[in-house]
Amino acid sequence: MHLITLTTDFGTVDWFVGTMKGVLLGINPSARIVDLTHGVAAGDIRAGAFALTAGCRFFPKGTVHIAVVDPGVGSVREAIAVETERYFFVGPDNGVLSWALRNERIRTVRTLKNEKYFLPQISKTFHGRDIFAPVAAHLSRGMAIEKLGPSKKEFVRLDWPEPRAKGRSIEGEIVYIDGFGNAITNLGAEVLNVFGGRRLEVLVKGKRLCAIESCYAAVRARKAVGVIGSSGFLEIAVNGGSAAKNFGLIPGTRVSVVSPTGTYE
Amino acid sequence: MHLITLTTDFGTVDWFVGTMKGVLLGINPSARIVDLTHGVAAGDIRAGAFALTAGCRFFPKGTVHIAVVDPGVGSVREAIAVETERYFFVGPDNGVLSWALRNERIRTVRTLKNEKYFLPQISKTFHGRDIFAPVAAHLSRGMAIEKLGPSKKEFVRLDWPEPRAKGRSIEGEIVYIDGFGNAITNLGAEVLNVFGGRRLEVLVKGKRLCAIESCYAAVRARKAVGVIGSSGFLEIAVNGGSAAKNFGLIPGTRVSVVSPTGTYE
Amino acid sequence: MHLITLTTDFGTVDWFVGTMKGVLLGINPSARIVDLTHGVAAGDIRAGAFALTAGCRFFPKGTVHIAVVDPGVGSVREAIAVETERYFFVGPDNGVLSWALRNERIRTVRTLKNEKYFLPQISKTFHGRDIFAPVAAHLSRGMAIEKLGPSKKEFVRLDWPEPRAKGRSIEGEIVYIDGFGNAITNLGAEVLNVFGGRRLEVLVKGKRLCAIESCYAAVRARKAVGVIGSSGFLEIAVNGGSAAKNFGLIPGTRVSVVSPTGTYE
Repeated sequence: MHLITLTTDFGTVDWFVGTMKGVLLGINPSARIVDLTHGVAAGDIRAGAFALTAGCRFFPKGTVHIAVVDPGVGSVREAIAVETERYFFVGPDNGVLSWALRNERIRTVRTLKNEKYFLPQISKTFHGRDIFAPVAAHLSRGMAIEKLGPSKKEFVRLDWPEPRAKGRSIEGEIVYIDGFGNAITNLGAEVLNVFGGRRLEVLVKGKRLCAIESCYAAVRARKAVGVIGSSGFLEIAVNGGSAAKNFGLIPGTRVSVVSPTGTYE
Repeated sequence: MHLITLTTDFGTVDWFVGTMKGVLLGINPSARIVDLTHGVAAGDIRAGAFALTAGCRFFPKGTVHIAVVDPGVGSVREAIAVETERYFFVGPDNGVLSWALRNERIRTVRTLKNEKYFLPQISKTFHGRDIFAPVAAHLSRGMAIEKLGPSKKEFVRLDWPEPRAKGRSIEGEIVYIDGFGNAITNLGAEVLNVFGGRRLEVLVKGKRLCAIESCYAAVRARKAVGVIGSSGFLEIAVNGGSAAKNFGLIPGTRVSVVSPTGTYE
Repeated sequence: MHLITLTTDFGTVDWFVGTMKGVLLGINPSARIVDLTHGVAAGDIRAGAFALTAGCRFFPKGTVHIAVVDPGVGSVREAIAVETERYFFVGPDNGVLSWALRNERIRTVRTLKNEKYFLPQISKTFHGRDIFAPVAAHLSRGMAIEKLGPSKKEFVRLDWPEPRAKGRSIEGEIVYIDGFGNAITNLGAEVLNVFGGRRLEVLVKGKRLCAIESCYAAVRARKAVGVIGSSGFLEIAVNGGSAAKNFGLIPGTRVSVVSPTGTYE
């Protein structure tokens, strides 16, 4: 199999994503292409990085992941391909790959310099089609990554907000708002285990918002609830509604979790 | 061929659908996956049931249809797989499969109990990825449905609103609003045949809205028209506009059809 | 490979596109299907024609391109299939194929008359599923286009607005607004070369809007910029924003390009 995924902010109302697939299949007719998402907010590198991180690990070994959220396209930012133990990653070197790479064992990072593996004509506005798609198609055919360009020691890393223990609470923040309006935090299930299974409450701006339950349906319709979501992080949801809209949550909003009945161990 | 379709309310702005495809292709690399729709309104089981019913019959024999509109995910509702003469269906046992099953000859219904065919880790919020996708992938590879769990006599059935003859008219209701704003009713072409080909008019809330014509373009731009739509049901449309918005039509709105020149035969 | 692309105004909230794919795969199980776009504004034949033109050329030789923006479905408009040196095109004869065909060497145009290659039941509202999909699937399997129906000398051609030199400026117009709000004009890179590489400015309604730069990031955030976009045409953009919204640009808006420092050569 030659599996390739796409994570972009191109949306689906135009032909942009379709032409990337035309380029991919022109170079590797056996490629299988999966849209991870094209709904990243335009230019929102952190949202793209989170989507890629949350989604990429469900794909089989050898998959080539393309991520293009690229507001600096055509300017000085570099383009890279990364080989890890499990996957390949291709995209601009602006941090969009960096959160996914935190979970991978990196073998090599290459700057995309060899124009032999690009389209013959390179636009200044659409490297997804002209550079990243052809490069990924060649990688998916088994081409050695070394051919793409020189090795690169460092790449741009977005800072990941680490949770912090503070007295009896753990402090974190919203990192992503999903299409249902669920607000996903940086607080992983393992972080919350420090409370030893006690009943936990979620506070936003110092105010109690909801308890952490096992599923959305554990609370009545239109009520707020905290759950460990499918990406392994605490998320704030409203059963049948949008937590983001109801409570004005956006990426960066501070969140804390406390156990009203116990102490931080 | 190993064809699998997806009908969900997950939308396409996040990575949720993409990860289901990663799981499917990880288990069955030969699977061909078609999105029926991911645009079902969040938690709207009846809309999901209608979309599946309208779409599934255009797929070849042996196709595995996954439908996940699942507001009760993680709570007590069961998960099922159904084998019929033509197809397999996989989803929560909340009625979302039930309208499609009205058109099928059911061979067996199974409760999904055998965790061997799930992902190793089961979240409480995303059984589409963790249970339904792996189960469907195994079915698409030809695995016997009996392996998934015990046989089940009954499953949750949504009531289908049957049209009713009432004097000189036939009474029905809106069951689905499509993306163009066309309002699809429960009145099938065969129901309207009782009028013997006479000119028919559509009434909403007792008021004449439009005549039934052969196609949208039979009326001028911005004018209302009734047509037998592509799903075989009468739909109320506005040529170049949205009937739902123009006339405030929603699922459940009562509709009647009369022949002003004849009597009900 | 048996590659088929889809360009429609069906959107993705319903099952319409999915059923087309079911029909395609039922007839040609080896078909590879790529969505070029389903986000064409409802009934906007010119937008569909532009999307097809901009996208189709990135696909390998032999690809079958289906385009269905078809407000006259079920009425008198004809349906056609076209074989060119590189591709096949299938759709209604309402002009939606005509801009793409300007770039192709046409071998034959056929009226779709042979019902043997349609679905057994033809609806009045969804020829994408009932006529265009089965016809395209048969073509993708290598069936001779002659079997589909009689040869046709003429087909409906949308007029393409040609740029015009006027004193020291070149006059054109907006032809497409993309999902980012970038306003794409009919002024190709080759047209602008007449200025011999001089600094160029873009005027709308006689007022200077921006200069032409090499990429979006050449101007500060929220500033307007003209760039040669990925389709080879001048587009007016706002770095990180929507030029269409900011400046009220729509298809048909007149645009001119001048070199304030030089004369038209």
